[in-house]
Amino acid sequence: MARLVLASSSPRRQDLLKMLGLDFIVIPSTIEEEHFNGLSPEEMVRELSRAKAEDVGRSVENALVIGSDTIVVLEGKILGKPANPGEAIEMLKELRNKEHTVITGLAIYDSNTGRTVVDSDQTQVFMGSIQDDDLINYVKTGEPLDKAGAYGIQGIGGAFVDWIKGSYYTVVGLPIHKLVKMLKEFGVSIF
Amino acid sequence: MARLVLASSSPRRQDLLKMLGLDFIVIPSTIEEEHFNGLSPEEMVRELSRAKAEDVGRSVENALVIGSDTIVVLEGKILGKPANPGEAIEMLKELRNKEHTVITGLAIYDSNTGRTVVDSDQTQVFMGSIQDDDLINYVKTGEPLDKAGAYGIQGIGGAFVDWIKGSYYTVVGLPIHKLVKMLKEFGVSIF
Repeated sequence: MARLVLASSSPRRQDLLKMLGLDFIVIPSTIEEEHFNGLSPEEMVRELSRAKAEDVGRSVENALVIGSDTIVVLEGKILGKPANPGEAIEMLKELRNKEHTVITGLAIYDSNTGRTVVDSDQTQVFMGSIQDDDLINYVKTGEPLDKAGAYGIQGIGGAFVDWIKGSYYTVVGLPIHKLVKMLKEFGVSIF
Repeated sequence: MARLVLASSSPRRQDLLKMLGLDFIVIPSTIEEEHFNGLSPEEMVRELSRAKAEDVGRSVENALVIGSDTIVVLEGKILGKPANPGEAIEMLKELRNKEHTVITGLAIYDSNTGRTVVDSDQTQVFMGSIQDDDLINYVKTGEPLDKAGAYGIQGIGGAFVDWIKGSYYTVVGLPIHKLVKMLKEFGVSIF
């Protein structure tokens, strides 16, 4: 049986695979998360997910490699990870009282066949009003600094989110409902 | 400063308060979770949340007591916790390929003033197709047995959910975006 490899160092993605009871190893991809020019946000996360899975997949035998990438899109603009606390504060000021979209790409590369299956999923997220003080104190917790869009819905940042339309796990960084179906196609069941 | 009390033995609610960094103690309410006759589902969870908070609140001094209750409504019918694995399988068979509603009530009782504030929140949840085998194996994990509607969105059951409309945490059992605003009214900040 092929072993499962997660081509991501994201602790959130690792936690989700553990939650599903999957056995896996982590080999982070060294692909640069640069923006792929000329692609739509959705194409971009798909291609990045594919690139991550294939990058790691070429170096491991008998493996199914999961690649994934998440971006936050606000009014057509892509928000990446904030470079510093000041940038995190600015991002959160832009996000409050508005709807934005989180898009997560997902790719599975089978190193036995060289085949890659790619998909993506998107979720609308609405943040309510957040007072400046709360936003500044939130950034001080450190939670926003390694996250696209400067918040973690699975942490204190979850209290800023009034509603979502779509999959919660797509916002966290891995659409598990799609992952489980894709893994099944490759003969891997979570049970 | 008043101490915070959670009038619920639900480990999910305890985890969420911890996630928010709140200091609290747990005193489960002994209120029977019987259906309040003649009330709408929303009124029912509100009144149960109020009853839980006030039940515990009367026995503690200088405290803010949080009461909460969650129900699952499918086509007008309330789904409680399954009595046994067979009932859990039947509930999941009813839920798949359909939209249902999760309603969570939330009450805060201030034992210093005798004042209770009550609110509720609801989220639509859509489960995709689930094969009988997967559903039976899911029930074997034990996860569904202590949960209204026989699934946990914060566990393996999350893989059965295609999308939600509303707050994820309302489905887990505590609408944290509303809780944080309510606590603020009582002078408690998460920062």
